Amino acid sequence: MLTTNPFDDDHLHEECGIFGVSASEGAAALVALGLHALQHRGQEAAGITSFDGAMFHTHRAMGHVAGNFDRDDVIRSLPGEVACGHVRYSTTGETALRNVQPLYAELQSGGFAIAHNGNISNAMRLRRELVRRGSIFQSTSDTETIIHLVATSQYRTLLDRFIDALKQIEGAYALIVMTPDGMIACRDPLGIRPLVMGKLGDAVIFASETVALDVVGAEFVRSVEPGELVIVRGEEIRSITPFEKQPPRPCIFEWVYFSRPDSIVDDHSIYSVRKNIGAQLAIEAPVDADLVIPVPDSGVPAAIGYAQQSGIPFELGIIRSHYVGRTFIQPGDKVRHLGVKLKHNANRALIKGKRVVLIDDSIVRGTTSLKIVQMMREAGAAEVHMRIASPPTRHSCFYGVDTPERAKLLAAKLDLGGMTDFIHADSLSFVSIDGLYKALGESHRADIRPKYCDACFTGDYPTSLTDHDESSAVDQFALLAERMN
Amino acid sequence: MLTTNPFDDDHLHEECGIFGVSASEGAAALVALGLHALQHRGQEAAGITSFDGAMFHTHRAMGHVAGNFDRDDVIRSLPGEVACGHVRYSTTGETALRNVQPLYAELQSGGFAIAHNGNISNAMRLRRELVRRGSIFQSTSDTETIIHLVATSQYRTLLDRFIDALKQIEGAYALIVMTPDGMIACRDPLGIRPLVMGKLGDAVIFASETVALDVVGAEFVRSVEPGELVIVRGEEIRSITPFEKQPPRPCIFEWVYFSRPDSIVDDHSIYSVRKNIGAQLAIEAPVDADLVIPVPDSGVPAAIGYAQQSGIPFELGIIRSHYVGRTFIQPGDKVRHLGVKLKHNANRALIKGKRVVLIDDSIVRGTTSLKIVQMMREAGAAEVHMRIASPPTRHSCFYGVDTPERAKLLAAKLDLGGMTDFIHADSLSFVSIDGLYKALGESHRADIRPKYCDACFTGDYPTSLTDHDESSAVDQFALLAERMN
Amino acid sequence: MLTTNPFDDDHLHEECGIFGVSASEGAAALVALGLHALQHRGQEAAGITSFDGAMFHTHRAMGHVAGNFDRDDVIRSLPGEVACGHVRYSTTGETALRNVQPLYAELQSGGFAIAHNGNISNAMRLRRELVRRGSIFQSTSDTETIIHLVATSQYRTLLDRFIDALKQIEGAYALIVMTPDGMIACRDPLGIRPLVMGKLGDAVIFASETVALDVVGAEFVRSVEPGELVIVRGEEIRSITPFEKQPPRPCIFEWVYFSRPDSIVDDHSIYSVRKNIGAQLAIEAPVDADLVIPVPDSGVPAAIGYAQQSGIPFELGIIRSHYVGRTFIQPGDKVRHLGVKLKHNANRALIKGKRVVLIDDSIVRGTTSLKIVQMMREAGAAEVHMRIASPPTRHSCFYGVDTPERAKLLAAKLDLGGMTDFIHADSLSFVSIDGLYKALGESHRADIRPKYCDACFTGDYPTSLTDHDESSAVDQFALLAERMN
Amino acid sequence: MLTTNPFDDDHLHEECGIFGVSASEGAAALVALGLHALQHRGQEAAGITSFDGAMFHTHRAMGHVAGNFDRDDVIRSLPGEVACGHVRYSTTGETALRNVQPLYAELQSGGFAIAHNGNISNAMRLRRELVRRGSIFQSTSDTETIIHLVATSQYRTLLDRFIDALKQIEGAYALIVMTPDGMIACRDPLGIRPLVMGKLGDAVIFASETVALDVVGAEFVRSVEPGELVIVRGEEIRSITPFEKQPPRPCIFEWVYFSRPDSIVDDHSIYSVRKNIGAQLAIEAPVDADLVIPVPDSGVPAAIGYAQQSGIPFELGIIRSHYVGRTFIQPGDKVRHLGVKLKHNANRALIKGKRVVLIDDSIVRGTTSLKIVQMMREAGAAEVHMRIASPPTRHSCFYGVDTPERAKLLAAKLDLGGMTDFIHADSLSFVSIDGLYKALGESHRADIRPKYCDACFTGDYPTSLTDHDESSAVDQFALLAERMN
Repeated sequence: MLTTNPFDDDHLHEECGIFGVSASEGAAALVALGLHALQHRGQEAAGITSFDGAMFHTHRAMGHVAGNFDRDDVIRSLPGEVACGHVRYSTTGETALRNVQPLYAELQSGGFAIAHNGNISNAMRLRRELVRRGSIFQSTSDTETIIHLVATSQYRTLLDRFIDALKQIEGAYALIVMTPDGMIACRDPLGIRPLVMGKLGDAVIFASETVALDVVGAEFVRSVEPGELVIVRGEEIRSITPFEKQPPRPCIFEWVYFSRPDSIVDDHSIYSVRKNIGAQLAIEAPVDADLVIPVPDSGVPAAIGYAQQSGIPFELGIIRSHYVGRTFIQPGDKVRHLGVKLKHNANRALIKGKRVVLIDDSIVRGTTSLKIVQMMREAGAAEVHMRIASPPTRHSCFYGVDTPERAKLLAAKLDLGGMTDFIHADSLSFVSIDGLYKALGESHRADIRPKYCDACFTGDYPTSLTDHDESSAVDQFALLAERMN
Repeated sequence: MLTTNPFDDDHLHEECGIFGVSASEGAAALVALGLHALQHRGQEAAGITSFDGAMFHTHRAMGHVAGNFDRDDVIRSLPGEVACGHVRYSTTGETALRNVQPLYAELQSGGFAIAHNGNISNAMRLRRELVRRGSIFQSTSDTETIIHLVATSQYRTLLDRFIDALKQIEGAYALIVMTPDGMIACRDPLGIRPLVMGKLGDAVIFASETVALDVVGAEFVRSVEPGELVIVRGEEIRSITPFEKQPPRPCIFEWVYFSRPDSIVDDHSIYSVRKNIGAQLAIEAPVDADLVIPVPDSGVPAAIGYAQQSGIPFELGIIRSHYVGRTFIQPGDKVRHLGVKLKHNANRALIKGKRVVLIDDSIVRGTTSLKIVQMMREAGAAEVHMRIASPPTRHSCFYGVDTPERAKLLAAKLDLGGMTDFIHADSLSFVSIDGLYKALGESHRADIRPKYCDACFTGDYPTSLTDHDESSAVDQFALLAERMN
Repeated sequence: MLTTNPFDDDHLHEECGIFGVSASEGAAALVALGLHALQHRGQEAAGITSFDGAMFHTHRAMGHVAGNFDRDDVIRSLPGEVACGHVRYSTTGETALRNVQPLYAELQSGGFAIAHNGNISNAMRLRRELVRRGSIFQSTSDTETIIHLVATSQYRTLLDRFIDALKQIEGAYALIVMTPDGMIACRDPLGIRPLVMGKLGDAVIFASETVALDVVGAEFVRSVEPGELVIVRGEEIRSITPFEKQPPRPCIFEWVYFSRPDSIVDDHSIYSVRKNIGAQLAIEAPVDADLVIPVPDSGVPAAIGYAQQSGIPFELGIIRSHYVGRTFIQPGDKVRHLGVKLKHNANRALIKGKRVVLIDDSIVRGTTSLKIVQMMREAGAAEVHMRIASPPTRHSCFYGVDTPERAKLLAAKLDLGGMTDFIHADSLSFVSIDGLYKALGESHRADIRPKYCDACFTGDYPTSLTDHDESSAVDQFALLAERMN
Repeated sequence: MLTTNPFDDDHLHEECGIFGVSASEGAAALVALGLHALQHRGQEAAGITSFDGAMFHTHRAMGHVAGNFDRDDVIRSLPGEVACGHVRYSTTGETALRNVQPLYAELQSGGFAIAHNGNISNAMRLRRELVRRGSIFQSTSDTETIIHLVATSQYRTLLDRFIDALKQIEGAYALIVMTPDGMIACRDPLGIRPLVMGKLGDAVIFASETVALDVVGAEFVRSVEPGELVIVRGEEIRSITPFEKQPPRPCIFEWVYFSRPDSIVDDHSIYSVRKNIGAQLAIEAPVDADLVIPVPDSGVPAAIGYAQQSGIPFELGIIRSHYVGRTFIQPGDKVRHLGVKLKHNANRALIKGKRVVLIDDSIVRGTTSLKIVQMMREAGAAEVHMRIASPPTRHSCFYGVDTPERAKLLAAKLDLGGMTDFIHADSLSFVSIDGLYKALGESHRADIRPKYCDACFTGDYPTSLTDHDESSAVDQFALLAERMN
């Protein structure tokens, strides 16, 4: 089977994007537009829940926003001035519709919908306890744990019950919650996952990235703060911070790869940070070459930075097809290893006889890098140098990012020489961890209280990891998924 | 309705791509890969016909190659060592499956399959005469005319009947024909549409562009010559040239926009010609600016050329979404004019306060240019200069390219000043027609016998246009399509 | 819209049929066959759950058993030696897949699947209390109440928790439950809904009707007794009766219409009881006529009984089409009132000039009777006499039968004369309630402790009706259904 | 695989039913209703063509009329006051949509649509000649031959061309043709296949059976005569008879099985002819028994006739399920031979210990008879006597009826004793060929010029059989079908 599936490429994948609107007519249509702009954060499934003042309405679908939520009948089935939505990329392989968010439940207080970006690192332990007391779970999603904690909380008001639930969970979460009383947006105390607030006329908007504000024409107001709950009732906004204050640790990989280059996260333009990393790479790891070639499309900004810093011309040496499909039949030996060519093809006329510097954002398993180096050689490149715009990825993420098990991370298995050999490059360099912090305006990474969550590079996890420590939570959820089939 | 459909953008569209394989096991799988690489030449429908030595097998589908021809069951239903295929973009709006190629008929000589890129400019006149004599047409395609001419020819051998048919048709055609005796590939006497030949081991391959050879790992051998018939029987190849020799006139728009940048057409790399055009533009129409910004993705090579020539930095000022859909509901006035943002979003952090040069490959109606200039201004650009890497498009194409009627071509209605006003740019320039020929290595366009068909820019059509002269052929085919529904 | 939908005809409809198998390879395939034989008890949706010793597997689908559960891939996805299934006809109009049974939950004790025929008449009150304590419902089905009662019960063993749940519910239920420990089949203390037990080799089978045993080639063993729990673990069978003993009150309408004529319920052959009712009708309401004509197909056995008792020949005066569809467009006035003809057509050659006795099993709204009398007259019948093989249906059912609200029951609105006029018959008679009991071998209906539940005829409900007394439960469930959409 | 497919039962199958309407608004909706009433004549596919005064519109679909032509959007896509339709059951197994009728072609004279019931017995010879002259066939249907004969005829008017075509074809045909000038209905010179004419207000209607007139509320006018062309232009009707007059030979199997019991063919009520056959059987083959049991549903009228003549009571000993599906998985040995039970189940309570006479309309392969006799025995019948309401079926039909090859016809292989043994009956009798003619009001079958086509019983074919004589036409068409795939 030959594949052109963009999901199969060698990247870490964000699991989710979320988007919410309060106090706008046609709220669901805005959510659809916003989710479309966040599609890169999750391509597996999407869902929207709206509230029309009396009833909640939900539509969920496997697949992309476009094709599912660009249909008149679907949007008309989601009336109301309040709505939120979710795009999803699953970690566990459990792709059933029942796990597609927003999740919804009828509580005594009325309807309760929730959209979650992140991962709760003690979900399995909480679930076991809830089931023991008689709660019945509908999904294998860690997010459902929050709903049952709210349903069974001894507090009286919905808000108190919700805070009670949040205090019991650990891990990373950006949440948008809808109740008959309004919308609540919040971020975990460390602000690991991003969430921004915008305005469109009188409407209040929450989104994982500013690009989703741009697409609906909304104005960026501010980030939701780590540990903050923003409570919206119509156009009225209230903020509370029920947690003890901690120094934030936003995920640094948002700048490396997750966010779109046209987004601005915590006052840093993604595009310019990536160019900075590229320039830093040119300083840290220069090379004598004829062409700087980005691995499309995520390597482009860093490649421009590298080219501008080094003076080597930036050229399109790899052409990416716009037309992707899942798999193609492999007709015997003649067309072995065609997979990568369906998506990427070398620009032979340009490359022949040239010394090229390839710029990519990261290496996970190394399989794509190997194929691309090979493609350059087959096209006649004289030398192939690989430069990576992030430090080596050596550790799994437990905060809502799809990481392969450690044993599959190239940088966890091999040293730089081994990796260079593995991908058959003439040379290979990664930007340093301090270089990465420099691209973000810091002088270096502070060993105590670094400004970002960089656990995938450093192994320094900012929260406890209850399920992981107890046993393999992933395995438990996989088992659950199978049993609930 | 808001749209992100790439078909709706402001470009001329190639109608078709064709691909054929002889003497390879799993021929249909190779055709599927080749068609996928030619998908940019036609996204509406695709089809493959194979011949297993006894039977012909055909599968046709609306939509992309991926999703239809990457399925095991489909490929298994197309056995044999000879196969050809077609991707289609329709001009007339008649999108019925019966028009999807390869077309197939049972003649007295046995099966006959045909895939056609181009347009027959006397098809309607020939059809009327054939119907008068008792031929029954199954489709509204001009290509079917060829089949009936073959079926009713008085010549004895299939090859003579086929040449007899070709001598009666006028216009542009690159054809791949399959009969029980083998495959015939041919190009019209002027070679208006492209067709190349390659080898993969012992297998012979024909394709509209070299990129399709790359994808299957085949070696480029040569172009099929204008007016040449290449006859393949297994691995045996024979060439005949039944027409009087004429100076060729290949379509110049292949270099401007149609072909993929990684293809090589008639010894000219598409990518380097486009960079040359960009450089030529920088010479012909310089501007004092801070950033050179391509309109993605087709404007990128010319923008690199413009930036390298002018020394102004190349930057990604417009981010293109990878996720496209057909239409999104427009939720009232608040989100008016969102269409373009779903596909393209301004990189605000970069553009604010800057003087930008936008580079695009062509302007057809001007609607997209207007939106993109506006997007730059809304993102805070200080000045917006538009540079176009082709001359003004002023005339319709009758050779298999989807052109709007002349009245809708911006350059047919307005002069340069009018166009600049229409798109609200600070300045606008097109490369000159001689500049375009220079980018292709000529000193200028020869008034007598120019080397290319450039009728869309000059109105100088290299063939007679029988149907067009008699009446509106398009109208007649539209009527036919309706009546056959 | 003209309809030939058999669901739209003028009958009360059984809501469900259930079928379970323990200790047979390919259990799910047997369940599919059994459900197919019970299809007349519920045509809206079907589901099967199997247990393979480790995992539970469920497949649910809207529509018939055939078309959904006759597919290899579906049956292969339901492995294991224990399985149960359900066919459903909904009362509330809430046709979502989440209400299709078997319902399934992961309890602390492991998986728990339940299939239910009947209706719980205090489900709404129980549900309110469960939600107040933090239970989250997934469906609007009354059956889910049982699962939450089990999940939150304070008893220790699953069996004690299940009995605890049953003791809290009131109404009618025949249940098949699957747990990792085996299968439990039970009937409510009055045995309102039927449930029989059979053997196929070593396998134990439960089914709503004996016809489902016939179809799988199983031997009928006995009915599950009212108030009995039959607990099966592999081939081992245990019976317990946790309720206080009461005289049974099985639903009499099973003989009138619900069960198939080839089933045997409580030692009475359905076919012969229906013939007896027909003969009784001929005695109670004789008429001088030429032909006895059944309303197909449910009126046939009673018509044979009537013909044999009266000596008037039995003839097929109405031909029923085997091909039914949902709706046909009505092309203007010319073809008004065609609905009934699509399903039923008069045998004109037979009827012309004859005095006919029509035999039908029951009248609910009277709409079909009116059309059939009219059809007889249009076909030239000299006289049309209607005889009904049940007493007038005057009361709603709250035990799992879809009854229109009382105001729509013809017999609740009009006396015999009024009904005769309404359907335009020359005469109309119903069998008497005592006549009905006679057909079942009783001398008459005992006023105290009658042997059957005949509430639809008499209004004498054998259980309390908590939800109904508190308010309109139907309305509450309808509201729920809307809110959960 | 267990099957309940009604197509798999042991019957000859009519290939087609046709229906046409002229001069009625909403013509297509009437055609849909008419085709639904003719569904028993062909369940594989259906099609409707309408003409709105300017354009022809066609919709074809695999499957039943209901489900395809009861949809608003489909009927709205078929505007106009003239329409015709077709239901199809294929003989060759070639079930492609391109063979679904009405077939349509654009001739020089304009649109031409044709719906055909019957079979052209020299279609293959004609087709070879047409292809030789350059005609290109779109389908493997014999009907398309007629269209090409019309298209290539040397006559001037469409009517003359059509008659020219009819004079070249041999075999059986009832045709409805639509042209821009109106509708033509015709029957072959022997009138082998039926066709009747009716009126609905001013509208003219043609149908294969009167039951289709009943369903739309139309009045029966007369049969189209053998060899007659009825030409309708709006409400205006003209009749011509271009063929030499011959004594008609309508297909006798219409009374035995094909037509619905509520139809009247050539002044004989199907129902009463079938009762007559049953009575004749009781005279020719009496038996001492307790119950007369029809094989449902086609055996019912003959069983009523047998019961009334013999005085033995008519009873429903076999219950037929209304819910049919294609196939069920067979779960091992335990449920072997379940096929027949899914559709038919024995009424055990009735049959046990009784001597039964089973009445069926015909025996083709004998497989169903064997299963039904066995089912009676397993239900405890003391004796099982089979009586068949037609003579032994010994010969293939070449006139549009799906017959197995002769080698599979039970009566072509075995004598009466052998057949009795094969089906394990205590006795078996068929009605005599003279008895069959008696039931139709004749004294006996005339050896010279019998009044009906009874070739399936007698081998006396009323036309020449060119293709059959030349070679196996069925094989040639099968080959064609494969090659055109």
